[in-house]
Amino acid sequence: MASFFPAALENLIDSFASLPGIGRKSAQRLAFHILSLSDEDAEHFADTIREAKKKIHTCPVCQNLTDGELCPICSSPNRDRNTICVVSEPRDVLSIERSREYRGLYHVLHGALSPMNHIGPDDLRIRELLQRAAGEDVEEIILATNPDTEGDATAMYIARLLRPFGMKVTRLGFGVPVGSNLEYADDATMLKALEGRREM
Amino acid sequence: MASFFPAALENLIDSFASLPGIGRKSAQRLAFHILSLSDEDAEHFADTIREAKKKIHTCPVCQNLTDGELCPICSSPNRDRNTICVVSEPRDVLSIERSREYRGLYHVLHGALSPMNHIGPDDLRIRELLQRAAGEDVEEIILATNPDTEGDATAMYIARLLRPFGMKVTRLGFGVPVGSNLEYADDATMLKALEGRREM
Repeated sequence: MASFFPAALENLIDSFASLPGIGRKSAQRLAFHILSLSDEDAEHFADTIREAKKKIHTCPVCQNLTDGELCPICSSPNRDRNTICVVSEPRDVLSIERSREYRGLYHVLHGALSPMNHIGPDDLRIRELLQRAAGEDVEEIILATNPDTEGDATAMYIARLLRPFGMKVTRLGFGVPVGSNLEYADDATMLKALEGRREM
Repeated sequence: MASFFPAALENLIDSFASLPGIGRKSAQRLAFHILSLSDEDAEHFADTIREAKKKIHTCPVCQNLTDGELCPICSSPNRDRNTICVVSEPRDVLSIERSREYRGLYHVLHGALSPMNHIGPDDLRIRELLQRAAGEDVEEIILATNPDTEGDATAMYIARLLRPFGMKVTRLGFGVPVGSNLEYADDATMLKALEGRREM
């Protein structure tokens, strides 16, 4: 197959095909789209990749991605510095910020414990979290890793490490999604919802 | 939302989101993947885009994409120069070559007639096809545009233009796909299959 397309095009297709969730066929479609762009637009696309790699680094405090010295949240004066919400990925910060409910700080682990994928504690930003727990005046740490096996395992592991520090350690509440239909709630979610039931 | 991610990352997400079939969420996932790459790999990704745009152009004869003066098929000595297969897109050449049946030349239109999208004859490489039909010693032209409304319309339009040249003009045979189950053949395909039935 490779021989049917010129090398430069094959390389571009390979680049796209190397991305997660992009199959060979999609990669072809994307490559053809790039060729259909104006030189300026294609150049811009390539530049955004360069720029992002050059400018983006992790915030030394919360490990979230930033292009500044500190991330906007860590450097913001009107965030509650006594609460740290621990998430697996930078995009999780986005989801929680969207709720407009949380005013504290974050800590991004950049992954979750996963023995099958050989991801251990040292591959996550857990050491940095413990340093914050020891150093800063933290009253509560909310473990907001995903409600799946790896996320739960990571939360439990971190909770155990944090116990000596004596601050309040909580896990995000799980249950039936708001606006959803009970009929479609899976067993595990329903179980969590029952466990997490509140008096009213 | 934009404000939650640093500008350089937002720009990268925008770049991916501008690709066909890539939604905002997928664009985010792809952008994070790029950031997780080594500097070399990210640099390579950006370079493949540059290289492809710089090196790839259309073959002056068949209009297929190539990085050489002529495309490999047009410059090959062992192709039958009396037959031209007309396709809409470069990827269609790939599909037909895969059948290992066709030994003639190609002509890539780079699209199909689509009044709704304001794509007319002048937006396709039809003029170049007529020049070939007039110039080269062509005995048959196979119209292999897609078996959809726009592909059929394009084939009929070109067939009419080619009539004066007097060469044989054929349309790709349509019918039930080989190895498929009649039970799942849609009405239109079944109709084509009946129309295209052969004595045995």
